[in-house]
Amino acid sequence: MSARTTIALDAMGGDRAPEIVVRGANIALQRHPDTHFLLFGSEAKIAPLLKRLPRLAQAATLHHTDEVVLDDAKPSVALRTARRSSMRLAIDAVAKGGADGVVSAGNTGAMMAIAKFALKTLPGIDRPAIATFYPTLRGESVMLDLGANIECDAENLVQFALMGDVFARTVLGLVQPTVGLLNVGSEDLKGNDSVRSAAARLRGGTSPIRFHGFVEGDDITAGTVDVVVTDGFTGNVALKTAEGTAKMFSDSLRAAFHHSPLSKLGYLLARGALKKLAARIDPRRYNGAMFLGLGGIAVKSHGSTDAFGFANAIGVAVDMQVNGLLEKIRNEIVRLNQEAPVPQSAAL
Amino acid sequence: MSARTTIALDAMGGDRAPEIVVRGANIALQRHPDTHFLLFGSEAKIAPLLKRLPRLAQAATLHHTDEVVLDDAKPSVALRTARRSSMRLAIDAVAKGGADGVVSAGNTGAMMAIAKFALKTLPGIDRPAIATFYPTLRGESVMLDLGANIECDAENLVQFALMGDVFARTVLGLVQPTVGLLNVGSEDLKGNDSVRSAAARLRGGTSPIRFHGFVEGDDITAGTVDVVVTDGFTGNVALKTAEGTAKMFSDSLRAAFHHSPLSKLGYLLARGALKKLAARIDPRRYNGAMFLGLGGIAVKSHGSTDAFGFANAIGVAVDMQVNGLLEKIRNEIVRLNQEAPVPQSAAL
Repeated sequence: MSARTTIALDAMGGDRAPEIVVRGANIALQRHPDTHFLLFGSEAKIAPLLKRLPRLAQAATLHHTDEVVLDDAKPSVALRTARRSSMRLAIDAVAKGGADGVVSAGNTGAMMAIAKFALKTLPGIDRPAIATFYPTLRGESVMLDLGANIECDAENLVQFALMGDVFARTVLGLVQPTVGLLNVGSEDLKGNDSVRSAAARLRGGTSPIRFHGFVEGDDITAGTVDVVVTDGFTGNVALKTAEGTAKMFSDSLRAAFHHSPLSKLGYLLARGALKKLAARIDPRRYNGAMFLGLGGIAVKSHGSTDAFGFANAIGVAVDMQVNGLLEKIRNEIVRLNQEAPVPQSAAL
Repeated sequence: MSARTTIALDAMGGDRAPEIVVRGANIALQRHPDTHFLLFGSEAKIAPLLKRLPRLAQAATLHHTDEVVLDDAKPSVALRTARRSSMRLAIDAVAKGGADGVVSAGNTGAMMAIAKFALKTLPGIDRPAIATFYPTLRGESVMLDLGANIECDAENLVQFALMGDVFARTVLGLVQPTVGLLNVGSEDLKGNDSVRSAAARLRGGTSPIRFHGFVEGDDITAGTVDVVVTDGFTGNVALKTAEGTAKMFSDSLRAAFHHSPLSKLGYLLARGALKKLAARIDPRRYNGAMFLGLGGIAVKSHGSTDAFGFANAIGVAVDMQVNGLLEKIRNEIVRLNQEAPVPQSAAL
């Protein structure tokens, strides 16, 4: 078997598709020269882009389709009707073994619905979750779910904790990652039934997870725990609130530096250090949300990212494949479930 | 009737009480010289502090009590048992007409439970909410609920929208404030039943509110709307996530400026503009969360604030009183309810 990694790309997903997808693939190819790309989308739009990128053209196979999943399509409708869409064909390529992973910047809900259907969930997992890395004061942490599951019961949260734990072990390389449940306070009696009951189970003597307890919103960026577990509604709002706050801060900072000739000079002198900081917290660096709990690698890019950001999302999928993470996650879930069985709820 | 405003202070609430409470009152007195303070708490601890602040001592009346509401006390237990606590006596002073408003940095849940019991909710409001101002890229906005109501139905959210609208009119002085519902996407089908059904009602032709629609986490600091409405779980997490992100940003920035002699010099040159920015987004400036929907003025300070922050929380209560906001809010709710009756649910 060749060491080459094949990544299927939904070339039509995202605000500026297919351009940023194709240019992102080109950047990713420079970083990961052993990658082959399957591009799904409009030949008339993609072929001219490939013509200008001969190296990528050699490393890519173009599969034409006219169908796309619209950004406002209902997930269930996209699943039933868009069977020849660029997103569906890219995910199907993974399901059929033709690709090792899929990346799309399209409709998140539709992607999750199609990926669940085509790639199936791993044994022991009722619902997949969306996870991302993010920068903290102490380094990097992982948060899930970021929007796949709007309403979650205790069982879902416990499974997210399990997946996050395994993910932090295998991807962040942590021996015993700490896991926290996002809540409105750290005391036992805080929060709703789901978080209280999930915490009780994670605190239980048989749980193999190093459970820190409840964490609050400001613990996310403090890096209090390695894995922050929450429902998809709260996680989505928290992530976007953090992004928005970072934007306000950097916009205000830019304005402050433009305030006077003196402050402009100050910026020039401090520029080196400021650019390092900007690079560390650049949201494009953390682009690429992972769908965890599926039987295949699927990575969702921000719809509004640029080619640099899309290349990072491809990088996440390539890393997952190169490091055999799917198999490790699968094995770890089996092992952890044997140590402390996670009961499955009856239905999705 | 005298123009003097009387504010009751829970002198024992907060991480560094009674010191920051007394010193905060002293700062507030300089800003609002016509204020009289009722201090509730341990005489042995408060009297020595007052001795060093003769002007405050003249403007304050000390009411001794040994009881305090503990930070981890369950709200229902605090309500039933802590009848002689500093928090309870301070709130009771408002209920009995002896004070115009109350400020505490103590247990939020206990304060809300006691305030609801003692001050009652306004007609047309089932549940009070906690609201705060915060800085945005466009100016200032208001968000509610920040943690009083962990689970909210559509009816609660509609009432929060109403209170937020009235508050923005009377306090921010906006003629027709825009109101947004926090969600995981802007499309109609996004979110849970509560937000979808609340949005449908706010969009309805008879609603007097200028409803923008759904907003996402990054809209909070973008200032997309004047009033952000959400349930207390999400609002609490979002607010603390924003605070944590701002802290990460400012800590990292400080480190960047200390990186080299050149960057230190850069900081010195840009310092004036940077300090203006720091002052604008200083969390102490926005300290003082308002309990809206009650028949009295109650303001909650951050438990970990300093004297400057506590003085700002007192300032919020004084401003509400001086501007007759309670009456305006009461009248506006009646007026808006006449235009578009808000049905009340059967029970709390």
